[in-house]
Amino acid sequence: MPQMTITVPANFLVRGKTTNCKVRVTGKQPKIIMKIWTNASLPADAAQIFQAGITGHEQTENIAEAEIIFGFTDPTVLQSAPNLRWIQVPAAGYEKFDNAAARALLHEKNVALTNSSSVYNEPCAQHVLAMLLALSRRLPDAHQNQNHERAWPQWEMRADTYLLNGQTALLLSYGAIARRLCEMLAPLHMNLIAVRRTPSGDEPIKIITENQLAEFLPQADHVINILPANPDTQNFMNAEKFAQTKRGAIYYTIGRGTTTEQDALVAALQSRQLSYAYVDVTNPEPLPPDHVLWTLENCYITPHTAGGHNGEQGRLAKLFVENLRRFTNGEVFLDQII
Amino acid sequence: MPQMTITVPANFLVRGKTTNCKVRVTGKQPKIIMKIWTNASLPADAAQIFQAGITGHEQTENIAEAEIIFGFTDPTVLQSAPNLRWIQVPAAGYEKFDNAAARALLHEKNVALTNSSSVYNEPCAQHVLAMLLALSRRLPDAHQNQNHERAWPQWEMRADTYLLNGQTALLLSYGAIARRLCEMLAPLHMNLIAVRRTPSGDEPIKIITENQLAEFLPQADHVINILPANPDTQNFMNAEKFAQTKRGAIYYTIGRGTTTEQDALVAALQSRQLSYAYVDVTNPEPLPPDHVLWTLENCYITPHTAGGHNGEQGRLAKLFVENLRRFTNGEVFLDQII
Repeated sequence: MPQMTITVPANFLVRGKTTNCKVRVTGKQPKIIMKIWTNASLPADAAQIFQAGITGHEQTENIAEAEIIFGFTDPTVLQSAPNLRWIQVPAAGYEKFDNAAARALLHEKNVALTNSSSVYNEPCAQHVLAMLLALSRRLPDAHQNQNHERAWPQWEMRADTYLLNGQTALLLSYGAIARRLCEMLAPLHMNLIAVRRTPSGDEPIKIITENQLAEFLPQADHVINILPANPDTQNFMNAEKFAQTKRGAIYYTIGRGTTTEQDALVAALQSRQLSYAYVDVTNPEPLPPDHVLWTLENCYITPHTAGGHNGEQGRLAKLFVENLRRFTNGEVFLDQII
Repeated sequence: MPQMTITVPANFLVRGKTTNCKVRVTGKQPKIIMKIWTNASLPADAAQIFQAGITGHEQTENIAEAEIIFGFTDPTVLQSAPNLRWIQVPAAGYEKFDNAAARALLHEKNVALTNSSSVYNEPCAQHVLAMLLALSRRLPDAHQNQNHERAWPQWEMRADTYLLNGQTALLLSYGAIARRLCEMLAPLHMNLIAVRRTPSGDEPIKIITENQLAEFLPQADHVINILPANPDTQNFMNAEKFAQTKRGAIYYTIGRGTTTEQDALVAALQSRQLSYAYVDVTNPEPLPPDHVLWTLENCYITPHTAGGHNGEQGRLAKLFVENLRRFTNGEVFLDQII
């Protein structure tokens, strides 16, 4: 077999190690052929985008021989798939890999990790904005009236609505969704504060660190939880923190259910320490039909729909295809975690 | 009685006519004393702001001797109150004066007309934003689920939500509320189009005139009616215009109920020509409990609450007091119509 020289994209020079890759010479440029494994559940239109995008590569049913994974797995795959180079999670959350052991193993095995946060920033930020405004404009009360009395409680309801202007919103994190939300909130002239582990110093809003929460929770009219699930965020909003909030504050949670101590949330709503909560994530999910959270008149629940949008799976497939192009061309990934 | 010279504020030199005014000399500057009549219904805190603000003036119960009116009247007062100089309407709408005859009479009698639009721009714009997002995020469906099945229809509901980005919103007017709404919508990257009688040419969004509606109604995903009630807007959105909308468009109305031909709206919702409507104003108001509009599953109704907000009457009183200060100092009014 004749020898040939190919230009190896930067992604293949993984941290200085030598590496093998399969190539196919079809034109002037040899093409790199990757073995891709996926368990992403895609409807027909999105599957078509995926299939068209991986043309020239090989799809495998055997995860052990995968070089690329597009789907939901866990860190054990890092031991069982020796040729693995890159995992893309088709979600914003990547719980199973968001811990010190998994991060270390990803580094050790030279496996890149990307998520799909750019697909979800927009719908998630719009969902929180919708929650904030639905409550400030008392839309659920109007909906309730329409379904029952069909009265015209114009003046009672008007007195109960409020302008968001000048109110304080405290965001418990400052990732991509929170940053996008802050852009959407800018025209409403709220007082925005976010918690960030390592402030960059050039954030357009006030940034505090976690140890300042006891000082700032009592100032917030709105507490917004977009925390990911990881060992540090387990039961992050607990009884102690709910007790620190301003009496009558409103709590919004769209990250992961495990970041809220749910019994403490129920208690805070029952005692009216929180005037309302708008909850998109619960623990467990689905929330059992007989769970008390469904029955509280000051708690509204959306069934983990914050990231959803028509065309969601198509956008997930497109993001993977774009990252596959970037990978084989040695370009920087979108939404890279590691 | 000794003669004295006072500096007459510009507002008193009404279109070159001579004018009398009562003054009180308490310090170095003589104070102008106005006779104020009001029928504004103010709660205690707002009444206190009003009373404190009119200190030094006279309040009259007799509208015929009023120089200033803060309240709801009609153009007959222009004939019956010969000393009238200025009317402030404690609302955004000023239907009774928004016609050619009333405008002519205001000019003829040299009576200024102000409304309270700066109190209402913000809540009204936030209300429309809330309606847009509640539907795009399917919050009423989630509320319905919570009140009944308590299932977890996560994936059905996600597929049914949508991003507002890139969608087209057509505003049927471009007054202060619409302009504020456009500022709030800017971060959502929608395609914004507004109808304006006399384009200024420097609007930050696409402006069309009314005779271009037949061309642009079929392009709009969202049709937003913030029209005031006047002879030109009576039944503005009628069967013909609903037939011109894109099939499945969403209709929002928060101006006045009379600007929508309500039977045509019901028909458009029943035929799904409109996929949804979010309605804050109806005809009549209150909407009778047995009216079909309440019962349509694709119509959501808020009971004329768009302008409401906690502190509304206090802000109305403050605006009047500020305009009274401006009036007696010869400064330009806020929210002046004529």
